[in-house]
Amino acid sequence: MQGLMMDMPLMISSIIRYAAEYHGSTPIVARTIEGELFRYDYRSAYARIQRLAHAIERLGMAPADRVATLAWNTHRHFEMFYGVTGTGAVLHTVNPRLYPEQLVYIINHAEDRLLFVDGATLPIAEQIAPRLETVQGYVMMCAREHMPASTTLPNLLCYEDLLAAEPDTYVWPEFDERSASTICYTSGTTGNPKGVVYSHRAAILMTLQFMAFVHMGSRNGGPEVLMPMAPMFHGNAWQFPYLAPMAGTPLVLPGRNYEPDKLYELLEGERVTLTCGVPTFWLILTEWLDRTGRKFSTLRTSLSSGSSPPRSLVEKMERDYGVQLMQAWGMTEVIAGSTALMKPGTADLPFEQRIDQRMKSGRAMWGNRYRIVDDAGRALPHDGVAFGHLRVKSPWACSAYLKNEGGDALDEDGWLKTGDIATIGPEGHISLTDRSKDVIKSGGEWISTIELENIASAHPEVLQAAVIGVAHPKWQERPLLVVVRRTGSTLDRDTLLAFMRTRTASWWVPDDVQFLDQMPVTGTGKIWKLKLREQFRDYVLPEAATPSR
Amino acid sequence: MQGLMMDMPLMISSIIRYAAEYHGSTPIVARTIEGELFRYDYRSAYARIQRLAHAIERLGMAPADRVATLAWNTHRHFEMFYGVTGTGAVLHTVNPRLYPEQLVYIINHAEDRLLFVDGATLPIAEQIAPRLETVQGYVMMCAREHMPASTTLPNLLCYEDLLAAEPDTYVWPEFDERSASTICYTSGTTGNPKGVVYSHRAAILMTLQFMAFVHMGSRNGGPEVLMPMAPMFHGNAWQFPYLAPMAGTPLVLPGRNYEPDKLYELLEGERVTLTCGVPTFWLILTEWLDRTGRKFSTLRTSLSSGSSPPRSLVEKMERDYGVQLMQAWGMTEVIAGSTALMKPGTADLPFEQRIDQRMKSGRAMWGNRYRIVDDAGRALPHDGVAFGHLRVKSPWACSAYLKNEGGDALDEDGWLKTGDIATIGPEGHISLTDRSKDVIKSGGEWISTIELENIASAHPEVLQAAVIGVAHPKWQERPLLVVVRRTGSTLDRDTLLAFMRTRTASWWVPDDVQFLDQMPVTGTGKIWKLKLREQFRDYVLPEAATPSR
Repeated sequence: MQGLMMDMPLMISSIIRYAAEYHGSTPIVARTIEGELFRYDYRSAYARIQRLAHAIERLGMAPADRVATLAWNTHRHFEMFYGVTGTGAVLHTVNPRLYPEQLVYIINHAEDRLLFVDGATLPIAEQIAPRLETVQGYVMMCAREHMPASTTLPNLLCYEDLLAAEPDTYVWPEFDERSASTICYTSGTTGNPKGVVYSHRAAILMTLQFMAFVHMGSRNGGPEVLMPMAPMFHGNAWQFPYLAPMAGTPLVLPGRNYEPDKLYELLEGERVTLTCGVPTFWLILTEWLDRTGRKFSTLRTSLSSGSSPPRSLVEKMERDYGVQLMQAWGMTEVIAGSTALMKPGTADLPFEQRIDQRMKSGRAMWGNRYRIVDDAGRALPHDGVAFGHLRVKSPWACSAYLKNEGGDALDEDGWLKTGDIATIGPEGHISLTDRSKDVIKSGGEWISTIELENIASAHPEVLQAAVIGVAHPKWQERPLLVVVRRTGSTLDRDTLLAFMRTRTASWWVPDDVQFLDQMPVTGTGKIWKLKLREQFRDYVLPEAATPSR
Repeated sequence: MQGLMMDMPLMISSIIRYAAEYHGSTPIVARTIEGELFRYDYRSAYARIQRLAHAIERLGMAPADRVATLAWNTHRHFEMFYGVTGTGAVLHTVNPRLYPEQLVYIINHAEDRLLFVDGATLPIAEQIAPRLETVQGYVMMCAREHMPASTTLPNLLCYEDLLAAEPDTYVWPEFDERSASTICYTSGTTGNPKGVVYSHRAAILMTLQFMAFVHMGSRNGGPEVLMPMAPMFHGNAWQFPYLAPMAGTPLVLPGRNYEPDKLYELLEGERVTLTCGVPTFWLILTEWLDRTGRKFSTLRTSLSSGSSPPRSLVEKMERDYGVQLMQAWGMTEVIAGSTALMKPGTADLPFEQRIDQRMKSGRAMWGNRYRIVDDAGRALPHDGVAFGHLRVKSPWACSAYLKNEGGDALDEDGWLKTGDIATIGPEGHISLTDRSKDVIKSGGEWISTIELENIASAHPEVLQAAVIGVAHPKWQERPLLVVVRRTGSTLDRDTLLAFMRTRTASWWVPDDVQFLDQMPVTGTGKIWKLKLREQFRDYVLPEAATPSR
């Protein structure tokens, strides 16, 4: 017996239509590639998005055809999130920070037919274009006056010219909500990059989940302004391009400018209340804030994911800047992986306990199922102690990679192999202890690199810390601590190891410390451990450093 | 091209499994039919729900079979929301306040196979059982010691005995999310009652929307305790039985006791923060609060729908009791009809303007589309002035009534005929001006009975006001105001009409006032205008009362 409810598919186009109809004058503020601020509103954006949908079709795109962007967080990129997907075509957001070989691989692999670039990414596109096998056309996301005088790209079109030639009303088709909407490749620190293909259904369901963060902490009708610091090519900027119009709140886009003063100008000047991004943004921003003595008057919350923020950062942000850094677990394969919301009724815990909760990678959220398993696939208890390979099932989790690249995404029981190692507490708190590929196996036991990094980062003179495993004749692997010191610090190896020794089991204490001026980072801003491991491949541990257990 | 996301159906059973797994010790508090408070938690409830699912199958229920309840808001009724629907069977919540003829009609029409009753509704079931054509078994939702010594119901089973005989683990089937989950009949003030059949998909999507109210106004991790005052047979108690476990918050159930002191005992004693119900509850509760001098220390919000609350009530609740009465438009056919949340950024408006916003029937929400049309079906502008028949499309709106009772639910363009007359403002604020069947047509123009009722209710001596149309030789219809005065008031006709005259167009002023001791109300607590119109069928308006336009 079927329910007698309207059989309407969940379509991404419905979000922007809603925002235009009932939040038409709510502003969108974007820093352009040229650097100035551009302001318009959902009504104007919607008219342009409808023109864009026509243009996409006029350029020959049929449903399922892939349209790629190599672009930063601008208003035109925002328009692509609707103008492309709404027609049934598929938006592929490519990370311009990747290496040319990776870009070529990804674009060819996805069989993208059009490539949209901006003023910052044009040189990259020019460099890789000769090797792109499926791209039939290039569009520059700018006004006529910013088109380059010359380019090696064949027949480069102007975005604004395309829009100007089209009508500003478009009838959005309704189709299977399971159809592909956007593609995002995982950064691929091992093997080839792998494409995660989102559907309209998954996008809507995840955005409904993210609505919690808009309502959370605001009063009824409280001011809310959203700005994603996460780039749009990084997990759809964590749904923010969908979230703001669904909630009817202003949206601020930082363009390509991630310098602290530029971010601060937007966060403070546009009265942003909620942002998101990897912890690296905040490590850099708080150092700048400390130095310049700036404060926030509206910002309340920043969602954090992708890697574990140091406890000192979480404490500082709340204590010194009144901003809750809320950590959730998520990945390209399952953007809404856990909820960053604290458990109902725990808001009044003492400061230290609140931070304890926030140091977890969020909590189990409705919609997702979780398990942790050992190497043999046996389920482990959710007791906050046992740690194992984290597995997830969810209506918005990846079921396979595009063209099955990299083999099965799921284990034989149908659970997503996340590549993370975690504990799950009895109330659903998730604590990542490692990435499967980063965990150190010492004498047959696992050592959590994340825990060691958290301890090292708690030292006031440590800016960034990474722990990698290096070969050891007796213990197979032992931890090496790699550190970037804060400006002016002269912290030395022995002092730091003494600090660590009082805070962890003796056999977990790293065998050595190496100091770097800068950490290698991946295209999405995480510490690039693969690169670190390469760098220290020939490194030999000091003898007899390992204490016996 | 399909997205590569897991193809997992949205199932109601997933909600309670989630709550049991990660909020196992979060309490459920319910007033039993016998009157005392019963306390347990999601873990215990889930074990019992799994026993119930087995029992439902053991009683011969197959997917799509209808299981009816005639019951109040108790923990056992809560268990039915999962134990029945989770197996694929369909829960039909029947309103025990209806007349026996209506009950017989509804249960036969839905072809219910089992009927679950409680200690309060047993006599009703005994009265109607001989006329029930499809019911094959009766279950009394109580412990063995509360079973009646004798009953005319054939072979009455005991709920607790059924559960005790079953194992407490059950594997929930996954099936088409569009399958029927629950049935609720509209109260049917005209024609036969009509069955609205919800699906698992619609239940999940609506609950995700209602999550806004849990997060709204709380801080991150703030205390939240939910208690539906709306009965479970009234639009699934507005999703509260699904909402609390999905959010992991405590749930309080008032049983059958709706006396002000009993409700207050629960609201205050269990530290409830969020409740819901028709305005009548609050009219009665605030009078009692005023009289006894009680205050709330935790309650922040009450969702209101079903009929328009008087402005004086909304003002008083916020000013005197610190409770936001948040009004949304909704109906059995589309429970999540609009959002009661104020527009982002409007929380700091002056008191009067905040109340202005709350006097609207909420705002357009994402997911629903809205139009208003005139009698000829032509679309009218959303300018806050034009009023017409409200039409809605939504993935959680009724597409047809069970067995197509009452003809098409949708108009020829596929929009739900809501039976409401409304204006829609440019920012999506919905103002109901009338029910289509209540609107007064005077001299070819519409007069809004709701607006007149709001004006009359603003008089400090008016407890309840209703306006109905009565026949008029010249103007076809003219408004008659029917009023229940507050205790002790001697307010008279001329004083009240003088009060109205300064607040509305002269030709809208009612031609007469009639005072009653009590308003007739429907089974869901709304003023029963059909009954009023019958009561005043032979009433003759005073001559020449109607001012000329």
